[in-house]
Amino acid sequence: MELENQYIYLDHAATTPLDPAVLAAMTPYFSAAFFNPSSSYGPAKTNKKALETARATCAAILGVQPGEIIFTSGGSESDNLALKGVLEGFANFGKPRRHIITTPVEHHAILNPVAHLAEQGYEVTYLPVDGAGRVNPQDLEAAIRPDTALVSIIAANNEIGTIQPLAELGEITRRHKVPFHTDGVQAAGMLELNLAELKVDLFSLSAHKFYGPRGVGLLYVRRGIPFASQILGGEQERNRRAGTENLPGIIGLAIALRLAYQDHAATTARLTGLRDRLIRGVLEQVPGAVLTGATGAERLPNHASFCFEGVFGETILLELEQAGILCSSGSACAAGSNEPSHVLLALGFDEDLARTAVRFTLGRETTQAEIDRVLAVLPGIITDLQNLDNRVEAVL
Amino acid sequence: MELENQYIYLDHAATTPLDPAVLAAMTPYFSAAFFNPSSSYGPAKTNKKALETARATCAAILGVQPGEIIFTSGGSESDNLALKGVLEGFANFGKPRRHIITTPVEHHAILNPVAHLAEQGYEVTYLPVDGAGRVNPQDLEAAIRPDTALVSIIAANNEIGTIQPLAELGEITRRHKVPFHTDGVQAAGMLELNLAELKVDLFSLSAHKFYGPRGVGLLYVRRGIPFASQILGGEQERNRRAGTENLPGIIGLAIALRLAYQDHAATTARLTGLRDRLIRGVLEQVPGAVLTGATGAERLPNHASFCFEGVFGETILLELEQAGILCSSGSACAAGSNEPSHVLLALGFDEDLARTAVRFTLGRETTQAEIDRVLAVLPGIITDLQNLDNRVEAVL
Repeated sequence: MELENQYIYLDHAATTPLDPAVLAAMTPYFSAAFFNPSSSYGPAKTNKKALETARATCAAILGVQPGEIIFTSGGSESDNLALKGVLEGFANFGKPRRHIITTPVEHHAILNPVAHLAEQGYEVTYLPVDGAGRVNPQDLEAAIRPDTALVSIIAANNEIGTIQPLAELGEITRRHKVPFHTDGVQAAGMLELNLAELKVDLFSLSAHKFYGPRGVGLLYVRRGIPFASQILGGEQERNRRAGTENLPGIIGLAIALRLAYQDHAATTARLTGLRDRLIRGVLEQVPGAVLTGATGAERLPNHASFCFEGVFGETILLELEQAGILCSSGSACAAGSNEPSHVLLALGFDEDLARTAVRFTLGRETTQAEIDRVLAVLPGIITDLQNLDNRVEAVL
Repeated sequence: MELENQYIYLDHAATTPLDPAVLAAMTPYFSAAFFNPSSSYGPAKTNKKALETARATCAAILGVQPGEIIFTSGGSESDNLALKGVLEGFANFGKPRRHIITTPVEHHAILNPVAHLAEQGYEVTYLPVDGAGRVNPQDLEAAIRPDTALVSIIAANNEIGTIQPLAELGEITRRHKVPFHTDGVQAAGMLELNLAELKVDLFSLSAHKFYGPRGVGLLYVRRGIPFASQILGGEQERNRRAGTENLPGIIGLAIALRLAYQDHAATTARLTGLRDRLIRGVLEQVPGAVLTGATGAERLPNHASFCFEGVFGETILLELEQAGILCSSGSACAAGSNEPSHVLLALGFDEDLARTAVRFTLGRETTQAEIDRVLAVLPGIITDLQNLDNRVEAVL
């Protein structure tokens, strides 16, 4: 991976560089084989086959049927499409349902459209989460109503790395015949996901989170789930998402997904080792460090996130950048907003502590030397900032 | 342009190959400069600047302000966003408007969402078009009501190449304070378009129609037009379109748009000459050939479309492909559907004649030799098919 090598990049949850092998697979479809897959001549039909092969690749990896995959422009579109698609789907069957169940630790691509739906008269139940950000399946079961249209629970949290008990949640939603969407944007490529076994009904992912291209994602919608298209026009994607197919992007998505699950056990073990080395080192060496989110197998293998009592997260980021280390305070979609993370507040953190968050997310190219470099500089940075009286209380 | 050079490609309205210069401009943003523009470290801020430079480039070419440009995943999303965005925008201001004005010759990315809105209770006026597919500005003025939310009229038709009198239409909509959207997917890169001068309020385009990448487009929304985002989540695009920015795609869109307007007058003159050579040759040499759409300056400079009395368009396409010539019967989004074109029906063609349509759309790399090759083989193909008694009436 040719990164700007003056940096140690530890913000893989924000985005990843395109894998050169993925770009190589995309390249023919930019120019030599550029034909519109919907056209009727031979070379276009060859492209249509390539499109359907990519769909089948994604479906096989996710344990679903090719016809259940809708290619989209990315995670945010997929999340919005899941919500609006199911609600309108029920309405089109003449059986509108007015209740949505979700959590307070979702990405804004769920929280914001849900809030918008609430303004339009939908009722929303936000399930409580524990101190690690996990929902209790019993709470889900208790919240389901006859008019519940959709349950949407993030598979793995982008800010704190916590993995939800998808199989238990899916067992409940399936038993109650309520569609279950999970935002898998951070989970895809990282966790083994057989969506049929997990009894997930809708699933969002985005290619650029696992070394695929920007601007392409997918939404899995299980056959039989009420669903209505939100971008209407041409008959692409079986009338579920109009628009000339982004074939280079879709090919890239499929190849990137396949590569993400090559040597997956080994990669997971290696990343988990580095992650735990980082977590252990930080908690041992940095005064006032607190791990946010879950531990062990309930946490993304590449994800370490902390609060550092008494110092602004954004200030730590600047110091780390000076030391050549790039990471984030949480979601890139909310970077620089200075608002405390809604996820940490939902976990019970107070606002001051929530403003001290720093997230390190590792990638395939991350080395032990890079982790050790973080551990070499971070304790000094935090101690200096704490001593500089740069305390949150003083600044506020 | 490295095409599969056994073919003469005359379907540029369906899609175009990515210009190698555009791909070269995109490439750094795939890997070396892959950073998420929303992240807060230096290299990400550099990407944010590149994003805003791309936005400014597009805005300058279109004669509008950078803040009025929303990057999307393509033409279909932009068209849907224009419709739903304005309707919801009026509703959010507490002033819902229930009336839409459009035409029967729009792309399905307008017609289908409009039909869906009609099912939801919106009232739709379809302006009549003349035999060349043009609307009469007086008809537009007569159709405007106090509750008209939006006028949406395609800038240049994809099937018949006819250009609408945008300036006259914009003058009327602006005077009546009704938002005016135009689907510019076929027009962008081909026609000089100063949207502010034309008094257009919303404008859709898609990069892959002018040698840019697939999966990226934009919607221009004039400042002050009621508008509501349809993909909610992160704060990208000034809260009007959530999702990690497809920076390589956006860079590609901007460069492709710039290149499309380089040497624009010369390219237009060259294409117009080739187009008219083709039109003249076909009308002179092919028995039963009828030009569909407008002529001269009222027609896209790269667009020639015909009906060939008595023979199925799809059959002609197969014969042309055998001769190494790729073209289409009309919209790629409806290819192979065997339905007569809604555009030709709106122009007054009967169903039989509408099923004989063939469209040739030229591109930058099209040569006079290629046009002459079409003229060398097409008359024989049509005559043979007519003589083979492969008449529409016989088949139906």
